[in-house]
Formats: sequence, structure tokens, C-alpha cells
Amino acid sequence: MRKLYPLALATMTLLCPVFETSGDEGMYLFNDLPVDQLKSKYDFEPSQAWADALRLSSVRFNSGGSGSFISSDGLVLTNHHVASDTLHKLSSEDRNLIDDGYLAKSLDQELKAPDLELNQLVSIEDVTERVNAAVAKDASVADAATQRRAVIAEIEKESTDKTGLRSDVVTLFGGAQYHLYRYKKYTDVRLVWAPETAAAFFGGDADNFEYPRYNLDATIMRVYEDGKPAKLEHFLRWSDSGVSEGDLVFVSGNPGRTQRIFTVEALKFLRDSRLPYVLDYLRRKEIMLQQFGLEGAEATRRARDELFGVQNGRKAYTGMLAGLQDPSTIATKQARETKLRAAAESDPELSGTESAFAEIAAVQAEKKNMLGQTVTFRSRLFDLALTSVLRAAEDEKPNGERLREFTESGRESLVQDLLSTAPIYRDLERVKLADELARFVESRGGDNEWVAVVLDGKGPRERAAELIEGTKLDDISVRKTYLDGTLDDIKRSDDALIDLARKLEPEYRRIRTINEELDERERQAYAKITAAVSKLQGASGYPDATFTLRLAYGQVKGYMQDGERIEPATDFAGAFEHEAQHQGQTDFDLPPSWNQAKDKLDLSTQLNFVCTADIIGGNSGSPVVNRKGELVGLIFDGNIQSLTSDYLYTDQQARAVSVSGVGILEALRNIYGADQLANSIGK
Amino acid sequence: MRKLYPLALATMTLLCPVFETSGDEGMYLFNDLPVDQLKSKYDFEPSQAWADALRLSSVRFNSGGSGSFISSDGLVLTNHHVASDTLHKLSSEDRNLIDDGYLAKSLDQELKAPDLELNQLVSIEDVTERVNAAVAKDASVADAATQRRAVIAEIEKESTDKTGLRSDVVTLFGGAQYHLYRYKKYTDVRLVWAPETAAAFFGGDADNFEYPRYNLDATIMRVYEDGKPAKLEHFLRWSDSGVSEGDLVFVSGNPGRTQRIFTVEALKFLRDSRLPYVLDYLRRKEIMLQQFGLEGAEATRRARDELFGVQNGRKAYTGMLAGLQDPSTIATKQARETKLRAAAESDPELSGTESAFAEIAAVQAEKKNMLGQTVTFRSRLFDLALTSVLRAAEDEKPNGERLREFTESGRESLVQDLLSTAPIYRDLERVKLADELARFVESRGGDNEWVAVVLDGKGPRERAAELIEGTKLDDISVRKTYLDGTLDDIKRSDDALIDLARKLEPEYRRIRTINEELDERERQAYAKITAAVSKLQGASGYPDATFTLRLAYGQVKGYMQDGERIEPATDFAGAFEHEAQHQGQTDFDLPPSWNQAKDKLDLSTQLNFVCTADIIGGNSGSPVVNRKGELVGLIFDGNIQSLTSDYLYTDQQARAVSVSGVGILEALRNIYGADQLANSIGK
Repeated sequence: MRKLYPLALATMTLLCPVFETSGDEGMYLFNDLPVDQLKSKYDFEPSQAWADALRLSSVRFNSGGSGSFISSDGLVLTNHHVASDTLHKLSSEDRNLIDDGYLAKSLDQELKAPDLELNQLVSIEDVTERVNAAVAKDASVADAATQRRAVIAEIEKESTDKTGLRSDVVTLFGGAQYHLYRYKKYTDVRLVWAPETAAAFFGGDADNFEYPRYNLDATIMRVYEDGKPAKLEHFLRWSDSGVSEGDLVFVSGNPGRTQRIFTVEALKFLRDSRLPYVLDYLRRKEIMLQQFGLEGAEATRRARDELFGVQNGRKAYTGMLAGLQDPSTIATKQARETKLRAAAESDPELSGTESAFAEIAAVQAEKKNMLGQTVTFRSRLFDLALTSVLRAAEDEKPNGERLREFTESGRESLVQDLLSTAPIYRDLERVKLADELARFVESRGGDNEWVAVVLDGKGPRERAAELIEGTKLDDISVRKTYLDGTLDDIKRSDDALIDLARKLEPEYRRIRTINEELDERERQAYAKITAAVSKLQGASGYPDATFTLRLAYGQVKGYMQDGERIEPATDFAGAFEHEAQHQGQTDFDLPPSWNQAKDKLDLSTQLNFVCTADIIGGNSGSPVVNRKGELVGLIFDGNIQSLTSDYLYTDQQARAVSVSGVGILEALRNIYGADQLANSIGK
Repeated sequence: MRKLYPLALATMTLLCPVFETSGDEGMYLFNDLPVDQLKSKYDFEPSQAWADALRLSSVRFNSGGSGSFISSDGLVLTNHHVASDTLHKLSSEDRNLIDDGYLAKSLDQELKAPDLELNQLVSIEDVTERVNAAVAKDASVADAATQRRAVIAEIEKESTDKTGLRSDVVTLFGGAQYHLYRYKKYTDVRLVWAPETAAAFFGGDADNFEYPRYNLDATIMRVYEDGKPAKLEHFLRWSDSGVSEGDLVFVSGNPGRTQRIFTVEALKFLRDSRLPYVLDYLRRKEIMLQQFGLEGAEATRRARDELFGVQNGRKAYTGMLAGLQDPSTIATKQARETKLRAAAESDPELSGTESAFAEIAAVQAEKKNMLGQTVTFRSRLFDLALTSVLRAAEDEKPNGERLREFTESGRESLVQDLLSTAPIYRDLERVKLADELARFVESRGGDNEWVAVVLDGKGPRERAAELIEGTKLDDISVRKTYLDGTLDDIKRSDDALIDLARKLEPEYRRIRTINEELDERERQAYAKITAAVSKLQGASGYPDATFTLRLAYGQVKGYMQDGERIEPATDFAGAFEHEAQHQGQTDFDLPPSWNQAKDKLDLSTQLNFVCTADIIGGNSGSPVVNRKGELVGLIFDGNIQSLTSDYLYTDQQARAVSVSGVGILEALRNIYGADQLANSIGK
């Protein structure tokens, strides 16, 4: 699944152009579309109106995915696995939306998501000059970071004050460009329809990242304004036919993070240190959540959404690491890099290039030392405590000096998160925190001074139980008190987790400062490398992914695998055959609704298809449109061969996997009895 | 489960006395029983005949557990989870002994285990003086290790030649003593009866290491000689009643490894480095085997026995680490150590003690560097290749210079292992080897010279497929050719795995030499510490566990947990109640045979009980006997509070868990229709 796993949203967002592109590679900025390429390769010239309509019909989910507006009365299409965070939060012991799915028969049955925020990209403005002008030429790394942060906060606040829109300055091309993105926010988002997980995630972990697939990984929500369905000017019309091999298609979504510009040394750091570290982390969480689930059906339900996310991340990172461990990958990257460095060396204007490569190598060594240096415990209750403590302290500072997430332009999103009505399960929190405390001891060593602070003389399990017992942060009104209060209120608190967060605050800030300085050093180095690439290869290209809106394009196209031709599309008949072939295997039973509807279904209707468009985690839920801008599909996965696309795009076998638009309509009408909903789509 | 996880059988077998004992602590040597303690604490004086009979009725399983003779015609009792390795090897797609259990209705239905070896301890001889005399006083660490190895090989060979018995010199008390153990070997071992896993492992991973329990974790085999049931002089009679609180009981079995003598620095190495490393390893294997099982029922079956072992190890090590992470554990150990060191410092004869502590600290730092330095890939086919390559090379050397496992006294066991008829699954081997190759790249870094040798320019998965494709070592006749062949035959081989093992041999030997020298340094240091303990505290005590026969004793005794009294014994009625309470949870369904027999059963019959005896992994399958030497139980687990007993015995809450002897008989008669078998037990 191509949802963004939270780990990918590290503090660092390094964003750079690629050295060389190939095939249908590219995640293009909407203000710098590959017009010439599309013209020459596909004889297609997107009009401004075509591009604007697609951009304004696209949305970003703050939970880590993408989506699109699909009707004039606010309907939003995304993946089931993007919505599953919300489905989980709306579920309880007595209402299992994950297992059973949901269909609102009328507006009043639509269920409000506790903390979703959808962003529609309204405008993009280049603010590079203003940002650069605010950073002194001879500033130290620390000063440069501070000055840049200050001017970015200023630009964002000005924009928010003026337009009322969410305003984010996005760092592109490794710091060579800064663009101001303004978003219209939708925070009243309601669930309209979701299928059963058995249909959405048919084939489970075994089929994840595989192809051919037969998944109805789709969910429909609706955005509201002032308590009523939003009236939308821009939304996608739907194509009433399936796709054919060779069709040109476009993907408009928010790829989370790529590392295409990474130097060989940076890739080796990923290969030898960071990815193994992340995988150990994910496997640990996977086992921990599985173990928790052994306690019974309700425990299984409580842990499941997080378990799915972890398993998905583990499989994705395993594929990424496997690609890097293949010696040919580094060899390919090394050849390109050697060529670039040789060219730069003979150009006096690019004399800083070599030192930039050296700087990146030096930073990797320091990043290795920082692995596991964290005091964020990935327990929701501790996160709330730490955020509350930091918020109170940051609010004492001028806007421009605050940590990024506490500046004024982000306040509304912060409040929404802190006051979310999503349920918090104390039993699960206790187990998660105990595991994190144990991990903290492991990563620091038991004799570390901060371990003494954290454990307070007890074992991790006992201490976690005490901390969870001693907090009231699962009560929204208590969180609101802290949110409305001052630093003094925080200081006076006797909440056990607030107390711990307070004690850990200096260490948290120390680590964060080091990481931000390392990021700044990389940013400056990659900016130099980017300049060299631009000058030598005249790259317009595209910047590495930043979880902001991009356009990718490609063809619907099958491929060869183990000597066998894989057709580009599957249909409903294939789903039933796949079920029969895997009888008795976990997650290979289609839901009863499908088997009951089998006779009514047009089994030849397209269900899933693949294309060559360049996508990555975060693109989940992206609409796939044809030349006319009509929706033909819904991105939900990449195949296993695409897992290396974080750092290397290929179109040999790598494919993006979509649910077919006609498949969604067929299922709504003939499986889920949702004719009314189906009829309102695209209108 | 208290079976020995293979990881515990590291090359190092450091074996030392404890500083202080408490309660019923102790795993005593049969030639140094705690006669005075038993007399004073329990008014019990074991006669020599009592002890000899118990020793000669006890057996060790080479698969990592213990057992006992229970009839004159060769019946052997052990745990289902000790036998499961054999059950797995005797199973196929069409015969699932793990799921379905087994009952031989007649001798000709008894199924021969492919590679089991049972050892009955016939005699113990102290050879300390001869071993020490062979090591020069001023020898370097490397020379001391070599000289010691040579004399041990010599002693063992002499003994084997003279007696025909398996002869092992065992290092005790950290090298302060060396004893020659002579074993009668049984290599024709056949399966008689096993229950379904649903009964043996009722409650699954969730209940593992928990109490109260309701598990029929028992299996009965039979030893044969010359193709006929062995006639046994010594076997255990069975008590015809259950146990009562306060009963004095004895456990005769083979605890695998304890670390009670470990210095604080050695424990910190476990806490901060080794156990986290092992747990990352186990979680990785757990996920890998689970993933393999997703491919279907047959894949699940193929991976299951190993998966069980890994999960069991993961849970045990998690408990061990949790104990060490509790600051009070190290504090307790530190207090004892400080006391000892202070006393030693004021004794001129013990002037070497401080330097011994320093030496152990220094060795820990080096061991940390060696973590993950391995070229043993834990794939059966690669193991066979490496063993074949080493065997050929070692056989060119005189017996005394060979690696331990290739000396003449161990030859028969080596041959049995190499020529085992246990099935080898190429699909599972491929996946396991791919994971190990990936792990090798991770632990060495992708640029390491040995990585280039191992991968040969391919990614781990591709390379593993090529290696498994290119080997014929799953064919026993091929393995026999290598076994009968010379080093030249190995050199001429074009088998892909033999070729890889040949290339890696120098690196394997380099690593092994370093590890053995580190062991030798620790051995010498612990011997000094042991001398100090003996002089200052007059300890007779017991040596750390060595997977050799020991006697432990204790009382049948309940305990308090979370303010609640836990009764010492459970019964069949409790099993059915436990099933009802956990309806719908994985592994909480008793098998159909139990539910069908419910009306016939005497539900008040004891099923499991706990006692305070000091056990550890390897004790699984040990008989529990009463004062009269009659079998009353069968050790199969320790409770979760006992998981720290590797390094710290307590009897507050820690308990050994047994299947009740009367429970086994009740099940045989009234669930499994095995009256004839039941009637022959104890006779």
C-alpha cells in the first residue's frame, strides 16, 4: 500500500532534483509541468484550465495520503487504507467499521471523522528570493537555520493573516527553491461508504505490493462546510469505460518522500544503517502489536490499524533495502555520480561541488550516531504530553523563533490534533509505552543518565503502568486546559506524563537541534549539487517528493515477470478465481457481500490496473485521469518491483497499481446497493 | 516452554558457581549432591541407590531437552515441545503429526526418529588434574586454549576407545573443574504417542510462560536396541496420586545454560548489547517465518516447528531482558559483587581477583564488536555444506588439534546429523538463506569484502535462489559422498553451497578463533573469581548450567500474584473452563478428542502443577519425582516470573511448571484410548 508510513515523515525533508531521468519518470510541480515532454512523447498539450481543474480537484489527507473531489456536493474518493485511520477511530467494541464496512443511507448517517484535515492546493508562489535574502551570506549553520526558519514563519503568517488559507513554505530542490503553498482546509469530513477490509485488502499482507491484484481499496467521504455538504466548483468527472493498454494517464497526488538526489554515500547510509535500523524497529512493533492482539477479539481490533501500518511499512522497507543491497543499484548510482563529479571538477564555477559531496558523507557519519537518539515514545498519550509541554514553552516566544509545528500558521491543525475525539485505549497505550521505555534503555544503555530519569528506579513495564495510571490526558477537557493554559500551568501539573515530558524537554530539544543542524548542512550541500546538475545537464526536472501536490504521467502497460506476461488489468471474475486458488489462506476470503452478489455482477468489469506513472508512499488515494481529465482509476499500491523507486525509478517491471473507476461504480451498484451514491458521482 | 533454544548453545559455555544461594536454589551435580541441605531443610537423606536410579532413569535429548525412562521395555517420556522437532521431521503434506498427534497401536506402528540421540549418564570422573597438568603455566591465551583442547580430545578418545561410551569432558565452575561424563547412547528412538498441539500447547504463545496452565505437553517415545525395544534396568515408577502443597520434589534434567556467576559488567553486556541483538534477530526470524507461512497451509506446516521455537525464544529473552532492565536487578548483583571484591582485596592470596573483574569487563567490550560477526547462515543446507567442508579439513589433522565437534569421540553423532533423513524444504531454505544473506550485508555493511564474496554481484534474494538451485546437499547420498571423501573431493566439488562454504572457511575460522580466545580469557578470569568465592564463602554450591545432568529440588507451592493467590495445581475441569473463557482466541480451542471425552474424564484429576525447583531451558521434559523416587510430574515450562532465573534465582513468585503424572495417565486412558500404553508405564 502506498500510504505514507509516519516514520517516513522524519524531521528531515530533503528535496532535490535527479541527475538523469528515464522513461515516464517524474513527479512534477503543478507550476512547472513537463509540457515539452508530454508534447513530444505523447503529443499531448495540457491546457492551463486542464491542469487547474485537476489541481483543484485533488486533495491531501493529513493522515498521510491523497484523494480527489468527485461530485459537486462534496464527495471525496480515497483509498480504504488511507481512510482506515478514520475508520479505526470511528469504531468501537460494538461497531467494527474495519471488518464490516459502512454505507450511509442518508446525510444524517454520515459519520464525522475525529481529526481529519483535507487540503486543496489553491495557489503556489515562488518566495525563493525573499527566503535567501533573509539568510546572511556568512551565517553559521545554526544561524542560517534560525534565520531561514524565522523568515519562513513570517511569510506563512503574513499569508495566513491576509488570505485565511493554510500557508506552507515548501523547500524544493534541496533548498534551491522555496515555494509558498496556500491551501483551502476542510476539517469537517464525514464517512459515506467503505467496503469490508476483506474486499479492500483482499489477499492481505501476502498480496500487498504484488500484482495481479483484485482489491476494492476505496472509500468515499464527504467534506462539509458550516454543517452542510460543501458546494464544489471543481471535481472530477468519471470516465464510463475502463482503460486499455497504451492509454496515457496522469496521477495527481502527494508523493511523500523520495531520495533520488541522494549521493552514493547517503544511499550507503540508508543501506547499512538507517533502513536496517528502521526494519528492526518495525519488526519489533509488529510483534508487540500481534502479542497485544492475542488477548482477544477486542484487543485485536484496537491494535489492528496500527499493525496494518507497521506491516505495510515493513514490507515496503524490506523491498527498498533489498534494492539497495543489490550491488547493481549502487553501481548505477555510482556511475552517474562519477560522471557528474568529473564534469563539475573541470568547471571553475562549480568548484564547491566536491566539498558538497564530502560534506554529505560527513553528515551521514553523524546521522549514524544519532540513530535511536530519540525521546519521542510513539505513545499517543506521551505525544500529547510532550506536545502540551512544548506548546506552552513555544508560545512564550515570538512566532518566528518557534519550532515549526508551533508557529501561528499551523495553530488550527495543532488544535485539531490535540482535541481529537479519537478513542485512546489505556491498555494498548501501556503496552506500547512499556515497549518504548525498554527500547529507550536498549538504545541508550542502562547506565545512561536519561534512563534513570525515565525509569525512576523501576522496570520498563512497571514504570509504563505507573505513568499511564498517573495521567488524565485521555480526557479532552484536560488537554484543553493545558492548551488554554500557560507555561506556569504546565509547571504546576502533577500529571505523570506531563511531568516526564517536562523532564525530558531539554534532551528532546538537544536532539532536535542536532538533527536540524545536520539537515541544514545537507540542505546547503545538496543545493550546491543541484546547481551543478542544473548547469551541467540543464535539468528542469522535478524536485524530490515533499508530500505536496505533484503530477506524474505514464502509460497503462503490462510487463514480463519470470518469463510470463502480466496483463495490465484484472476484473471481478479474476477476484473470484483468486479466492478459489487461495482457499484456506489468511485474508483470501472475499466478504459475504461479494459472494451473494456474484450473479448480479458484470464479472468482466475492470477491477485493478497498472501503469508506469512515477508514484511513491503518499500517492495512495490519488486520482488517475485520462487525457480528458476524467477519472479512470484510484492509485492504491505499487508492485514489488517498484519498491526501489524511492531512490531509482525504472519502468522495466515497476508499476503503479490502481482500482479501476468503473470497478468502483460496479461494486457500489451491484454489491453494496449504493445506487444513489453511484449516481451522484461525477456530477 | 523450557526447551533449549539453539542460540543458547553458543560456542561459549561459561560455567561458574554462584556468589550466594537462596531458598531452593541450585542445579546440583550428581557427584556432589546437596546432602546436608536436604537433611537440614527437608529431613531427607537421598541414598546412593536412590540417586543412581534417578540418574540412570534420566536421559538427555540431543534436540535440546530432557526426558526419562518410564518402563522396562524402553518407553521414554518427554515434552511434546521437545519431541516436536521429531514430529515435524516425521510429518509431510499428507501426515500432520503436529496438528493431529499420533498413537502407535502396535510396535510396528512406532515411527523411527530421523536423527534423535538420547544420552543416559553412566558415570562421572573428575579429570581436573590431568587437564590442568597439560596446560603450561605460562602459556599464552591461544596456547592455553590449544593445549586444553588437545588434552580434552585425548581423554575423550581414550575413554571412547576403552568403554565404547560417548565421552565428554565438561568444563565446570568456570574452568575450576573438568569432569569426564560417559553416556550410553540411544540412536534408535521411535514415536509411540503424541497428543494434538491444541492440547499440548493449549493457550499458545499467549499462555506460554504463564500460570495457571492446562497443558498436556507430553509425548512418549521408545528406545530400541538391535531393532527391538530396549530392555531397561532403570526406569521410573509412577506415583498413583497427585501432588499436594508442600510436597518435596526433585527434578532430574539437563539445564542448558545459566549465568549466575556473571559479573555486573557481563550482565550489562547482556542487557545493553547481546540480548537486544538476539531479540532483533528472533523478531526478524519470526516475521520471516510468518511471511513464509502466508503462502498456504503446507508452507505454514513447513515453517511451524521453527516458528514455535523462535517465538518461544523471543518470549523468554524478552523476559530475561526485562529483568535486567529493572534497575533493582543490577543493584542486587552489584551489592553482592562489591562485598566479594572488598573481601578479596584484603586477602593477599586473592590478589588476582580485581584483575579478573577487569579482564571480564575488557572481554565484554570485545564481544560487543563480535556481535553479528558470523558466517553461519542458519540454513540447513548451508550448515551441511560448511560442516562437510570443515569435516574434510579437520580430518587431515591429528585428533587433538581438531575443532571440538570433529574429534573422534563425537564422530558418531556428527554422522547421524549429516545423514539424517529429516526432510529439507527447498522453498523454505531459499527464503531463509535470502534473509541470512541480507542480514550478512546489514551486519557487515555492503562494501565489506566478504559481502562481495557472498553475493557474487547479485542481490540477496537472487543469490539465495541461485545457491539453493545449485546444491544437491538435500540428497543424503550426495552428503555421504562428501562424508566418505577427502579434502580433495571437497576442492573438486562444483556444488554451489560447498563452493561458498569453501570460500568462507577462512573467515569462519578467523571468527571462531577470536571467539574461542575470548572464551578462554573469560574462563581464566572466572576461574580466579570462583577461587575467591570458594575461599571467602566456603561455597560448595553448584556450577552454572552446562546442558548436563543436574538435580534440583523444591516444594510444590502456590504464590501470590497481583494480590491474588495462585493455587499450585490445576485440573481437567479447569482446562475446559479456560477454553470457555477464551472463546474465539487463537490457540484456545481444545482438540475434538478432549471435548468428545469430556463425560468420561475424571475432571478433578490434576493436570499441571508448580514447584520452586531451580530449572532453566534444557530442563524441558525432566521428570519430577517424589521422596520415593516415583514420577509425579514432567517439567515443561517456567512461569513468567522465572524468566530472570538465567542470572538470578528467586522463589517469591518464580515457579517451574509441570504436567502431572496422573494427568498424563488419565488422558491416555480416557481421551486417547491408549489403555495398553498406560498400563505398561512404570512397569
